[in-house]
Amino acid sequence: MSLLVAVTWETQPWIERFTRHLPGREIVVLGEDFDRSKIRYVATWGPKPGSLDDLPNLEAIFSLGAGVDHLMGYPDLPDAPIVRVAQDDLTHRMSEYVVMHCLMYLRDHARFAAAQRARRWEQDRSPPIAADVRVGIMGFGVLGQDAALKLKMMGFDVAGWSRTPKNVEGFKVYSGESGLDEFLACTDILVSLIPLTPDTRGILNRSLFQKLAQDGRLGGPVLINAGRGGLQVEADILACLDDGTLKAATLDVFEKEPLPEDSALWTNPRVTITPHNAAASEPEATVRYIANQIRRHEAGEPFENLVDRVRGY
Amino acid sequence: MSLLVAVTWETQPWIERFTRHLPGREIVVLGEDFDRSKIRYVATWGPKPGSLDDLPNLEAIFSLGAGVDHLMGYPDLPDAPIVRVAQDDLTHRMSEYVVMHCLMYLRDHARFAAAQRARRWEQDRSPPIAADVRVGIMGFGVLGQDAALKLKMMGFDVAGWSRTPKNVEGFKVYSGESGLDEFLACTDILVSLIPLTPDTRGILNRSLFQKLAQDGRLGGPVLINAGRGGLQVEADILACLDDGTLKAATLDVFEKEPLPEDSALWTNPRVTITPHNAAASEPEATVRYIANQIRRHEAGEPFENLVDRVRGY
Ligand SMILES: NC(=O)c1ccc[n+]([C@@H]2O[C@H](COP(=O)([O-])OP(=O)(O)OC[C@H]3O[C@@H](n4cnc5c(N)ncnc54)[C@H](OP(=O)(O)O)[C@@H]3O)[C@@H](O)[C@H]2O)c1
Ligand SMILES: NC(=O)c1ccc[n+]([C@@H]2O[C@H](COP(=O)([O-])OP(=O)(O)OC[C@H]3O[C@@H](n4cnc5c(N)ncnc54)[C@H](OP(=O)(O)O)[C@@H]3O)[C@@H](O)[C@H]2O)c1
Repeated sequence: MSLLVAVTWETQPWIERFTRHLPGREIVVLGEDFDRSKIRYVATWGPKPGSLDDLPNLEAIFSLGAGVDHLMGYPDLPDAPIVRVAQDDLTHRMSEYVVMHCLMYLRDHARFAAAQRARRWEQDRSPPIAADVRVGIMGFGVLGQDAALKLKMMGFDVAGWSRTPKNVEGFKVYSGESGLDEFLACTDILVSLIPLTPDTRGILNRSLFQKLAQDGRLGGPVLINAGRGGLQVEADILACLDDGTLKAATLDVFEKEPLPEDSALWTNPRVTITPHNAAASEPEATVRYIANQIRRHEAGEPFENLVDRVRGY
Repeated sequence: MSLLVAVTWETQPWIERFTRHLPGREIVVLGEDFDRSKIRYVATWGPKPGSLDDLPNLEAIFSLGAGVDHLMGYPDLPDAPIVRVAQDDLTHRMSEYVVMHCLMYLRDHARFAAAQRARRWEQDRSPPIAADVRVGIMGFGVLGQDAALKLKMMGFDVAGWSRTPKNVEGFKVYSGESGLDEFLACTDILVSLIPLTPDTRGILNRSLFQKLAQDGRLGGPVLINAGRGGLQVEADILACLDDGTLKAATLDVFEKEPLPEDSALWTNPRVTITPHNAAASEPEATVRYIANQIRRHEAGEPFENLVDRVRGY
């Protein structure tokens, strides 16, 4: 009864971890010679076409990273349940990222950093406080809700937007296409934490940015995208920064990663770039999570965090 | 029954605010002609020597800013109760500041900002998470405790240090001289939120920095001083940054303010400077607070947040 680890990088550390967390199992990797009929589980990230074919006894596919868009784009994905990673470590890291960048905008960190470079002592007589700033979280799932709670605790005025209607205590949650405009109209900082699906590809574009609140305390709306690069239209972001539709943007994800050296995003003074590290999945915790899901399954319990192939996340 | 507003700047807006919040009172300012025997209250910031003399019917002195070191240094301060400002707005602002700067160190913001300037996509394989980082808060009073709660909620491992022993649920609080070394030994980020008194002047010096934890996940101890500039020895901070005793410092307050243009702090790449704006007292909220204290007092209730002249805060 084997587990196939289908990664294209750092094979050995993954095998070592899975062997430790699933003692007594056969752990195989792509490229090795193994009996495909014995494979019950696959743990994978960005598998190569063909690598998951012909696994007649497959019981589940585990994504080694958060986000399953890499799997959804896979041709002929085997017809087994897909389980995504959702673990506290990753969730907390993402909230650190979101809270930090919202605070940096609230407190105009860029301005004070520039003042320091110019050796200029420059005070602001009536800076906004967190309660004056409306943060709108697109994608009110595991990550979005944890970030929302922490932003609220820091004092921000937080709302959410999701695909389906939701009741989450303490938050106004807008939903669906029909709720989008109203959500945007009262958003000063837009935090994108939605999955990349056919519905959401390119959603962060000029027409959406134009609907953001223009009467906020930050002097213009701000975008923070820590979801996926495919959500954003980078040409629109740059143009909207230029014409003032957006005041600033913090981007952790990009249309193409690594972000090409010649991208104008690197040097735009209104753009903050991080290298897709908002919330790295810690390998040890990921493997522990997967081992736990396998044990649950074999004890007759359902998998957690199953992906719905139709909605695409 | 009058209130004397003893400020040396922006007299008119203060009068306007006090008149609004204390209708029917006589509000006078320094320099005007008024009957000193009618003054029952003084609201002041950095009064000039002599300006508070000869007020025989004074019932209270209100500090217009947080921190009363400016009053303690005043020669011949009248013998009336001193009430300091402690208000949620200011407290929340300080916590924004502390949480933001702790997160920026946790997530090595300076490194990623430098990578962006160099158009370099550079990931970190095993970054620490907040729980890996120990924040030690010097001064576990109104500000220190609010910051501690919020840091804890973000996941940090938080402890406090105060003058007198304290029981604060959820936190280990060290106290007094005897508790200091143990407190420092398990501190990766030292957040200074103590008042400036004869006991604390110059406390942030080399001998203290040397006692900070050297085995932390940040690659060296970090100082955040948002208390008062007189707490720190700037020459020691610079020397300790140079020789690695400190990894970095974020300073909101300075020995001399505004920080002189020729200070080496401005350009040290390990120093983050903010212009004493961690938590500005919002004038409107301050006046509301003072008016409320006057009403309490006149209704026979005690003043809140009284200053103890002996301990100096
Ligand atoms: N940058 C990084 O380092 C990093 C790290 C981890 C994850 N991520 C990204 O973050 C994403 C979110 O993760 P999660 O764990 O929070 O996922 P999740 O729990 O599945 O939540 C996704 C949220 O997005 C909403 N959503 C999906 N499609 C939508 C649509 N068409 N319109 C409106 N709302 C839509 C969902 O609505 P419903 O609630 O109605 O289903 C849900 O609220 C991942 O998919 C991944 O791409 C990035
Ligand atoms: N940068 C800014 O914008 C800004 C804004 C507002 C305030 N501040 C500064 O922040 C300071 C703290 O404000 P707060 O409202 O939190 O004051 P607080 O409530 O009086 O708390 C002061 C804390 O410091 C401790 N402390 C005082 N002297 C000490 C000593 N010698 N050794 C050890 N601990 C000592 C006190 O110990 P006990 O609990 O035992 O009394 C208390 O925990 C103010 O005094 C002001 O200087 C700065």
